[in-house]
Amino acid sequence: MARQPKPLVRSDIAYSTPDRIVVRGKSLPDEVLGHMNLGDFAYLQLTGKAATPQQSAMFNAIVITLVEHGMTPSAIAARMTYAGAPESLQAAVAAGLCGLGSVFVGSMEGACRMLSEALPYDTRGSRCDDLEELAVDTVAEWRARGTPIPGLGHPLHKPIDPRTPRLFELAAQNGLSGDYVRLMQLIGAEAERVSGKPLPINATGAIGAICCEFGFPWRIVRGFGVMARAIGLVGHLLEEGERPMSFELWQRVEDEASAHLRGEA
Amino acid sequence: MARQPKPLVRSDIAYSTPDRIVVRGKSLPDEVLGHMNLGDFAYLQLTGKAATPQQSAMFNAIVITLVEHGMTPSAIAARMTYAGAPESLQAAVAAGLCGLGSVFVGSMEGACRMLSEALPYDTRGSRCDDLEELAVDTVAEWRARGTPIPGLGHPLHKPIDPRTPRLFELAAQNGLSGDYVRLMQLIGAEAERVSGKPLPINATGAIGAICCEFGFPWRIVRGFGVMARAIGLVGHLLEEGERPMSFELWQRVEDEASAHLRGEA
Amino acid sequence: MARQPKPLVRSDIAYSTPDRIVVRGKSLPDEVLGHMNLGDFAYLQLTGKAATPQQSAMFNAIVITLVEHGMTPSAIAARMTYAGAPESLQAAVAAGLCGLGSVFVGSMEGACRMLSEALPYDTRGSRCDDLEELAVDTVAEWRARGTPIPGLGHPLHKPIDPRTPRLFELAAQNGLSGDYVRLMQLIGAEAERVSGKPLPINATGAIGAICCEFGFPWRIVRGFGVMARAIGLVGHLLEEGERPMSFELWQRVEDEASAHLRGEA
Amino acid sequence: MARQPKPLVRSDIAYSTPDRIVVRGKSLPDEVLGHMNLGDFAYLQLTGKAATPQQSAMFNAIVITLVEHGMTPSAIAARMTYAGAPESLQAAVAAGLCGLGSVFVGSMEGACRMLSEALPYDTRGSRCDDLEELAVDTVAEWRARGTPIPGLGHPLHKPIDPRTPRLFELAAQNGLSGDYVRLMQLIGAEAERVSGKPLPINATGAIGAICCEFGFPWRIVRGFGVMARAIGLVGHLLEEGERPMSFELWQRVEDEASAHLRGEA
Repeated sequence: MARQPKPLVRSDIAYSTPDRIVVRGKSLPDEVLGHMNLGDFAYLQLTGKAATPQQSAMFNAIVITLVEHGMTPSAIAARMTYAGAPESLQAAVAAGLCGLGSVFVGSMEGACRMLSEALPYDTRGSRCDDLEELAVDTVAEWRARGTPIPGLGHPLHKPIDPRTPRLFELAAQNGLSGDYVRLMQLIGAEAERVSGKPLPINATGAIGAICCEFGFPWRIVRGFGVMARAIGLVGHLLEEGERPMSFELWQRVEDEASAHLRGEA
Repeated sequence: MARQPKPLVRSDIAYSTPDRIVVRGKSLPDEVLGHMNLGDFAYLQLTGKAATPQQSAMFNAIVITLVEHGMTPSAIAARMTYAGAPESLQAAVAAGLCGLGSVFVGSMEGACRMLSEALPYDTRGSRCDDLEELAVDTVAEWRARGTPIPGLGHPLHKPIDPRTPRLFELAAQNGLSGDYVRLMQLIGAEAERVSGKPLPINATGAIGAICCEFGFPWRIVRGFGVMARAIGLVGHLLEEGERPMSFELWQRVEDEASAHLRGEA
Repeated sequence: MARQPKPLVRSDIAYSTPDRIVVRGKSLPDEVLGHMNLGDFAYLQLTGKAATPQQSAMFNAIVITLVEHGMTPSAIAARMTYAGAPESLQAAVAAGLCGLGSVFVGSMEGACRMLSEALPYDTRGSRCDDLEELAVDTVAEWRARGTPIPGLGHPLHKPIDPRTPRLFELAAQNGLSGDYVRLMQLIGAEAERVSGKPLPINATGAIGAICCEFGFPWRIVRGFGVMARAIGLVGHLLEEGERPMSFELWQRVEDEASAHLRGEA
Repeated sequence: MARQPKPLVRSDIAYSTPDRIVVRGKSLPDEVLGHMNLGDFAYLQLTGKAATPQQSAMFNAIVITLVEHGMTPSAIAARMTYAGAPESLQAAVAAGLCGLGSVFVGSMEGACRMLSEALPYDTRGSRCDDLEELAVDTVAEWRARGTPIPGLGHPLHKPIDPRTPRLFELAAQNGLSGDYVRLMQLIGAEAERVSGKPLPINATGAIGAICCEFGFPWRIVRGFGVMARAIGLVGHLLEEGERPMSFELWQRVEDEASAHLRGEA
């Protein structure tokens, strides 16, 4: 049962020698440190390409938007985990990340996927006359499936999500507002028309559309949310270390959840 | 057993209203997006303060240094996890983060702790004459304990770690090269003297010292590594999705590990 | 914006008072400890019901089958994580569990789902004449979708999976071999007929069918795999602590993966 | 930089051939399935040995005691994670496990360590006259360090922890009540004497002592807690799927935590 190792274990990301450290073809000490900000280096690490100044401005804004969303289930999970294992901050961040799935990062990923499937990257430009028709068809399809259209509506931010106009403004300033931003806006308008309800584009819809302007594959988009939230969660854990809320929450939940079993409710 | 909720559930990081999103006192759409890069926003999220241009340059360089370290156990764990659950990229990143503990981020945290305990932040400036004595005492203490001094030596990068001179150069350019960088250098020289072995300051030693120049509590330092590596791991998973190595590794390990049980070795 | 807490925080699993600990209605010290084995208690915790002796025998066998599957990607991920954070065994187990997703536990869940959707629990008994027709229809459906039928075939265990006949034997001995086991067997036979390839029922197919005999909702089945593998992973980590393989694997992968970048390959 | 692979990748746990699956030297289909319960198989997987009937009874009881502890921070973290990624039950279990660190499983591990360091396994039997003196010394040592003695006292279960007498009763019935159980009891009595406070042995103290009777290394003990809690967490997640509490908790925490920032408190 001897097997010859196949040449399948290969990575193009980085390498080191005694005197060099090279990431995506750039010398870390000489060409990266002091020359790039963290967002630009993330862009390089993920795409293998250096961001232009316009891409840098937009990409930094997108990732920043995803860092901190308040006392989310993810932040609560991380804080609860830290309460039990304060010696393992990394595991508390990991616990918080585990919940960034279909419910929370799903709509951003979904908007990017919806738009890039409606207007495949290799056909862009050739179909811009049809954007209104595409929007009508897309809304009809989603309504037929009975699934909410990703990237529209927000439970708190009404009538508009304050991040959306700012993200679209930055997109326009940086040459990243084309067919996909337009298509997202047309889909929003059409969805409002047929549903009769206000359905403003939320931050995840705006980000999904701008990610299409970059030409990112939709699968990468969840990764932006995950890496951004890791930063946010570290902030929550540092605060939890100084002013903990976990034990109080634990006691409240424990008391309330089993009161009926203890014959108290 | 009725309990009155105590006012213990409180966070100062962020809040939202229908038309506002405010993080660390700054309006996300108006004062952050388009005005800050990701590293600066991370600094704000974690410390509650806006970075000066000098702090920004140095902090971005520190975190970037921690993003990508090649095919580490952490990257392998993330890739293996992704092979089993490609629908949960977030869980694969989480798996990779779980291993950033005492062995890998320990030395950075350890260097920061060693230096800030040798020269507490509230006494800095007052003791700079004693730095050489402090270095001698510190090395003697660690040797007495029989524990390697954190931040010194590297298995691959010899005779020097190429990141260290660049990080110290940036520190000097940005006004962040003071007693702690000096103390780290004196500790390195003293350790070489008493051990008779080359023990250059490695990247984690340099970062630990510069974190002391910032005045960061040592516990925060692990968080820098965790958030940085989350970015790096997303890069590895995107590559794994396109050119997987997990199944090949799995087969090799499975075959080799149990060959003696199958009577083949 | 004051909100009245709704009575939504409630759990029926367990409660404690100063002198009592009750799980699923049973006193832990008096009715559980010394009276149940771990598999039976797991059955109680998950279903809220005490297992009959027959259910106990079968359920213990199912979960045991899922504990240890060799040097899987999940075991490798756990060992790699432990190498970096040996002080956090729990995080290493967590890392290993994160990969138990669509690829590895998917087929067990899929078999249970396929069978319980073909023959819904509330119609069982009434349709047993149709089992052959159901099998033909089910195979046709899956082939039309172009997706492999869950629970059939195995890359190593040929011509049969040695666990399958034993699991079906135990099912028969314990009164848990009815329409679902029969349907799974008919589906296997039909799939072999139309594909012309040997497609024996594998362990996950057998377990999926027996879970249907229990009447378990298909979503619970992944949970059996997750809790079983947690036991297996603890075993791997104890071995890793005594005879580590992580560092060797790390070095090999690091060397091989970037050889082409270093100009060595 | 070519490296010869060293024979370091080796595991003694399990192997498979086309017609065999062998775990710890036993044929899974023939010698395990239908012959062992889950607790016994866990004992085999972890220790490499088959449990005697007495060891089986005691080991099953120990692990069962650790499965379900109510609405703990770990259970809350798992439920919160499931709310965001219901498609990844495994990641929600993983998130819950990540918090089983120094605070929650620490005391069980600590009791086992304290006792086995006071009375090393290779000296047992020879020192049983000294148990009282050992207890006095041990309590004095811990008090000198200012650290609470592991395994004593409980915030809710007063004046005794109802699990402790039952666990000790089972230990006595199964020939596992020797020097270590006696030493734990003497330490409890001495601690009460010198502190003047009631300090009953809690469940983790009882389990720690009984683990010493087995001769388990103290590092294994955390593993028992982790694998047990994985079972408990699956139970919580199944309940969360049917009757969710996460969104309600999220809203409450979000509202309360930032009320002062929104100017409401």
